[in-house]
Amino acid sequence: MIIVSNRGPVTFSRSESGERRYSRGAGGLVTALNAVMRLSEGAVWVASARSEEDVEVARETRGFYREVEEGGGEGREGTLRVALVEHDERDYDLMYNHLANPLIWFVHHGLYDLPRSPNLGDDTRRAWEAYRRVNASFAETVSEVASGLGDDEPTVLVHDYHLYTTPGEVRERLGEGAFISFFLHIPWPEPDLWRVLPRYVREEVLASLLSSNVVAFHTRRYAEAFLATVREVPGAEVDHDRSVVRCGDREVWVRVYPISIDPEEFASFARSEAVIEEERRVRELPGKLLLRVDRMDLSKNIVRGFAAYERMFERHPETVGKVTFLAQLQPSRQEVPEYAAYAREIEAAARRVNDRYGTADWTPVRLAMEDNFVRSVAAYKNYDALLVNAVRDGMNLVAKEGAIVNERGGVLVLSEGAGAFEELREGAVPVSPFDLDEQADAIHRALTMPRKERERLAGTLRSRVLENTIEDWVRAQLADIETYRSGGSGY
Amino acid sequence: MIIVSNRGPVTFSRSESGERRYSRGAGGLVTALNAVMRLSEGAVWVASARSEEDVEVARETRGFYREVEEGGGEGREGTLRVALVEHDERDYDLMYNHLANPLIWFVHHGLYDLPRSPNLGDDTRRAWEAYRRVNASFAETVSEVASGLGDDEPTVLVHDYHLYTTPGEVRERLGEGAFISFFLHIPWPEPDLWRVLPRYVREEVLASLLSSNVVAFHTRRYAEAFLATVREVPGAEVDHDRSVVRCGDREVWVRVYPISIDPEEFASFARSEAVIEEERRVRELPGKLLLRVDRMDLSKNIVRGFAAYERMFERHPETVGKVTFLAQLQPSRQEVPEYAAYAREIEAAARRVNDRYGTADWTPVRLAMEDNFVRSVAAYKNYDALLVNAVRDGMNLVAKEGAIVNERGGVLVLSEGAGAFEELREGAVPVSPFDLDEQADAIHRALTMPRKERERLAGTLRSRVLENTIEDWVRAQLADIETYRSGGSGY
Repeated sequence: MIIVSNRGPVTFSRSESGERRYSRGAGGLVTALNAVMRLSEGAVWVASARSEEDVEVARETRGFYREVEEGGGEGREGTLRVALVEHDERDYDLMYNHLANPLIWFVHHGLYDLPRSPNLGDDTRRAWEAYRRVNASFAETVSEVASGLGDDEPTVLVHDYHLYTTPGEVRERLGEGAFISFFLHIPWPEPDLWRVLPRYVREEVLASLLSSNVVAFHTRRYAEAFLATVREVPGAEVDHDRSVVRCGDREVWVRVYPISIDPEEFASFARSEAVIEEERRVRELPGKLLLRVDRMDLSKNIVRGFAAYERMFERHPETVGKVTFLAQLQPSRQEVPEYAAYAREIEAAARRVNDRYGTADWTPVRLAMEDNFVRSVAAYKNYDALLVNAVRDGMNLVAKEGAIVNERGGVLVLSEGAGAFEELREGAVPVSPFDLDEQADAIHRALTMPRKERERLAGTLRSRVLENTIEDWVRAQLADIETYRSGGSGY
Repeated sequence: MIIVSNRGPVTFSRSESGERRYSRGAGGLVTALNAVMRLSEGAVWVASARSEEDVEVARETRGFYREVEEGGGEGREGTLRVALVEHDERDYDLMYNHLANPLIWFVHHGLYDLPRSPNLGDDTRRAWEAYRRVNASFAETVSEVASGLGDDEPTVLVHDYHLYTTPGEVRERLGEGAFISFFLHIPWPEPDLWRVLPRYVREEVLASLLSSNVVAFHTRRYAEAFLATVREVPGAEVDHDRSVVRCGDREVWVRVYPISIDPEEFASFARSEAVIEEERRVRELPGKLLLRVDRMDLSKNIVRGFAAYERMFERHPETVGKVTFLAQLQPSRQEVPEYAAYAREIEAAARRVNDRYGTADWTPVRLAMEDNFVRSVAAYKNYDALLVNAVRDGMNLVAKEGAIVNERGGVLVLSEGAGAFEELREGAVPVSPFDLDEQADAIHRALTMPRKERERLAGTLRSRVLENTIEDWVRAQLADIETYRSGGSGY
């Protein structure tokens, strides 16, 4: 089995004494793929070389992989096999900073002000050509690793929107014997939104995805949107009831595997000294605790969250002074103008609430623009209400993480635009991300709900998360691959 | 048969001498419904009372209808039966200016900058309640007219997004015997976009539409989007192959009837003295003629059109000085801040091109912000290229009107976001509304295409329009109603 993702599990560096070292990658996707590695003996992980030392490793191991010792005494020891892909720097920059993260991300999350942006053109085409070259390099490494392993019919799991054309390139190199699965971790845009992308991008992405055996998403909604998009592809026949696309002789199974967390690992981290130490500071915040934890992305709807909080004070004046809104916001992509502008809007919105309602003893909004995971987890344990009001969000693991470690019967206010909504709606107070009064009332309800109802909701949330852990996520995929490869018919 | 639309075919007024007069309504929808009236003997048209004198007429004819003599010597004489609905002024204002035209229009055309707008709340709910009351008044009048006609099982044709809850209200009053058809003249938004509307709006609109017998759209795409939206409604069973929704005992047929024009009537107007007179002025414009004719709406993509034209000069400098871009833009909704801002952007974009490239003898962009139908038709006859680059557009009749009367083998540059794209793509140069370089090259290609290819495209366009005139549009609907009522199974 070969796993392919842009970001890998480790980054190499060299110490001052010249010794090679590595550090573990972070983020939801890497955590998830680590679980795949654990459950798939002998798997190799192909990822981009991102540091200078990564490039060295890439060159040394060309055509094979490097073994890295895992561990840290938490029962996860083992050997990780990694193959790194060296890219042309300019191509990688075009792929990452000019195509995938601005254009594809914005389209898939519906973030453009369409009467005004995007303004596409030949720049887009050049970035797309670089994107394809980067993907071809991935496929080349996959092909070399397969051959190094002596595996003619490998299972190749390709992950996320940086690697849309990798399945097609792998199919070209390895033929029909390879089993290719593509997993998208962001929403799939419905056809009208999809058409914001240039025609050549749309055609090449779809041709590549339809050369996979499985295309998988976090929610049924995204799978439906993908099927609707594929209906417009000539030669692709959609069997909606079986959630299958027939392309010539191949069936492409369109599947839904909602990603999750590792509850045990997460709970164990939540019990760590560092977190407990940090909890003291969190508990000093006056009044009830309303929390949000987000990357500073336009999709997260942070500004409307502050506006809704302000409206809560207008609509329920008795709450003034009795709650603190802690916003743990991880800075993100600040070199992109849209993100820099959004960061300023976030600060202005928080300041407005604080100027209007703050006193010498009470700051209504505590804005922490920092990457502080320990503090986030400390806050998870202590929130009375957790706000996840995203405009659109592939899954949103914050909702699941909070549910697992919160100790106050905290209530989740959850946007129907978050992927997590499909699984968690019955354990949450649902909101439209666009309705400020509704969000204001939902936050108020979450903060004032009777203990019994709070606990019922928290219990529901917790069981929903425990019913589908990251291991379940992996096992469901492996089981379907097994069924498909042995000629079964799926649904 | 009872036709229901917000705007009616006539508006009444009183002359200084106290005599009652009326003027004919204009616009694509009214023209289309006039064709329905012509082909449906004895039909009554129910519409809003919009003037003071309309209100008088509404009161006098309550429970019945008023006959109006049609005519003007163009072979369309006859008697029009009209029933006007009096509304509470405040309710009507909320329905029209606070709900239908900003919110529903923006959502259906995908015009919101979603990370920032809309900001919904209790105001929205109040506007929605007014919208429902206005719709209930429509249904009340329909019910009175039906009873005045002595028709227990009338066929009721309800038109467009101002009247979303009218089908449900009519069903409630007239029972299952009535045959209700709802026609939407704007795009239906796919589920993610649809969810921008508040939950109560979505639920009540869908419940109402699903109490119809037929729900109809201009394009297959909109019908697909509607079916995808309905999949999420509990109790509604979608039969995708038959394009039918089963709701309890009733089948709702989801149908596609692309609206069109009356080519004869249009061509006859194009031959009128007034148009011929105006043509002289149009022909004085230097160089080839690039034309656009649009209402000044954010969905029309007017700013990007000027930017693409400017890029054509950069990419094909030999075209500088050899073309005039005439933009006939009808002012619209200028009291709405978004529209006023967009008008300023349009002016700035045109000015930028003129400042950069204009000379004493040549103005590259002629911006005519006026409602001048005669001039538009004069320009239709004389364009070398017609630009329709809408972000999203229910149909776009400009493309069809131009195709019928143009006399220069003019080439249509057509956005894939326009509803007309489904019918006319093979007779047009297709463009993405978001790609400026592609639009620049498409305009260039349209202006420089060899005569033979121009004429082939113009011929294709013309036959596509003639294959499906406004009468065909009406007849297809009447035929399906006949089939449905006689127990047939449609597709």
